[in-house]
Amino acid sequence: MLISFEGIDGSGKGTQLRLFLSYLKNKNLPYIHVREPGGTELGEILREIVLKGQFQIYPKAELLLFLASRAQLVSQIILPALKENKVVVADRFIDSSVVYQGVGRELGPELVEKLNDFATDGLKPDLTFYIDVPVETALKRKRIFDRIESEGIEFLKKVRKAYLELARKEKRIFLMNGEKAIEEIHSEIILIFEQLYWGIIR
Amino acid sequence: MLISFEGIDGSGKGTQLRLFLSYLKNKNLPYIHVREPGGTELGEILREIVLKGQFQIYPKAELLLFLASRAQLVSQIILPALKENKVVVADRFIDSSVVYQGVGRELGPELVEKLNDFATDGLKPDLTFYIDVPVETALKRKRIFDRIESEGIEFLKKVRKAYLELARKEKRIFLMNGEKAIEEIHSEIILIFEQLYWGIIR
Ligand SMILES: Nc1ncnc2c1ncn2[C@@H]1O[C@H](COP(=O)(O)OP(=O)(O)OP(=O)(O)O)[C@@H](O)[C@H]1O
Ligand SMILES: Nc1ncnc2c1ncn2[C@@H]1O[C@H](COP(=O)(O)OP(=O)(O)OP(=O)(O)O)[C@@H](O)[C@H]1O
Repeated sequence: MLISFEGIDGSGKGTQLRLFLSYLKNKNLPYIHVREPGGTELGEILREIVLKGQFQIYPKAELLLFLASRAQLVSQIILPALKENKVVVADRFIDSSVVYQGVGRELGPELVEKLNDFATDGLKPDLTFYIDVPVETALKRKRIFDRIESEGIEFLKKVRKAYLELARKEKRIFLMNGEKAIEEIHSEIILIFEQLYWGIIR
Repeated sequence: MLISFEGIDGSGKGTQLRLFLSYLKNKNLPYIHVREPGGTELGEILREIVLKGQFQIYPKAELLLFLASRAQLVSQIILPALKENKVVVADRFIDSSVVYQGVGRELGPELVEKLNDFATDGLKPDLTFYIDVPVETALKRKRIFDRIESEGIEFLKKVRKAYLELARKEKRIFLMNGEKAIEEIHSEIILIFEQLYWGIIR
């Protein structure tokens, strides 16, 4: 089972992901945790370049670097783990490219979806938690921004809007209200996960 | 005018490219020289990773890294130089991806062409010199191989065959017999270039 966590920085995505990993650990469910970009030796080098690079990266090059990192991650880590029936928990995955590069950078969400399909051989998460907060809330929570998040408030608003649209469109994406209390969001996540994992829903 | 040099390592591509650059210099024609992967700050970092990387890179990730390098090169260097009416001389360009990743690594040449189009916004060379030699000749000439060229003789034979097919298909690609003497090949290249540059052909 492949589960991704999505949201703008400051949404609480990281907090929820860590709580979810503790839950899996406590339940003795076999799992691995990957992050994007990154998660492999190649991916971590690319992460450094993309998030902390001191030079300008053009939008298409940026997207292609994320996709390269993703292709490597899928082949090297995710597919083998899924074969071993592990729960794979991804901090960002295909939806981040659609909203940040496809919509935020205006390369077009459909095009990015096609390129995602190429990079992942069509692999999609079984379940995605999108933690939604207004941009203002995210900015209040988080003071340090990497290259992409420092694009400014208008960029982040476009990204959030794209996330909301995607969540409406894709059944696998669950929209979580990130302004609720941390423990409350966590309980909702566990509830949804357990229903899917134990085959109650679908 | 965008001119690319193509061929397997040991074909004499590098030798011909250097002679061609000297010619442009002597004629006082404004030009720039770029190499792939590389040619930009980002591209040179990616070049290091792809050609000298100590870890395995999966075929799709490899292709996407080449495409990222190319997208950056086109936006940052090639398009501005073409706008200034410079002759842009590229050591490898889109055709290398088609033959090495599309055919050599079996990702499919048509798919790679489509991805190339995305990365370059459809930009293609006006003129391509493909320096053709049998793999045995190339191996005799060159003893040091980078990661990709060290794939072995069968891989290189597949790549050469793909180059030959591409040269047959694309009018812009001129097939040069790389077993002729260095000076003779150079003269032929100049002849073709001058006819195109001064508008005699087409
Ligand atoms: N539901 C919440 N209500 C109030 N504050 C929260 C909530 N969730 C997280 N926070 C706080 O907001 C800040 C940012 O949280 P966190 O680091 O999880 O966000 P993130 O940007 O999504 O994470 P990352 O970038 O690591 O994925 C932290 O100080 C965290 O404690
Ligand atoms: N036409 C030729 N006949 C005989 N030897 C040649 C010819 N062209 C090049 N050589 C020799 O073959 C060797 C390889 O040439 P060169 O470095 O140009 O090849 P290349 O692999 O295509 O270059 P690069 O990898 O730098 O693009 C050199 O020693 C060169 O002098």
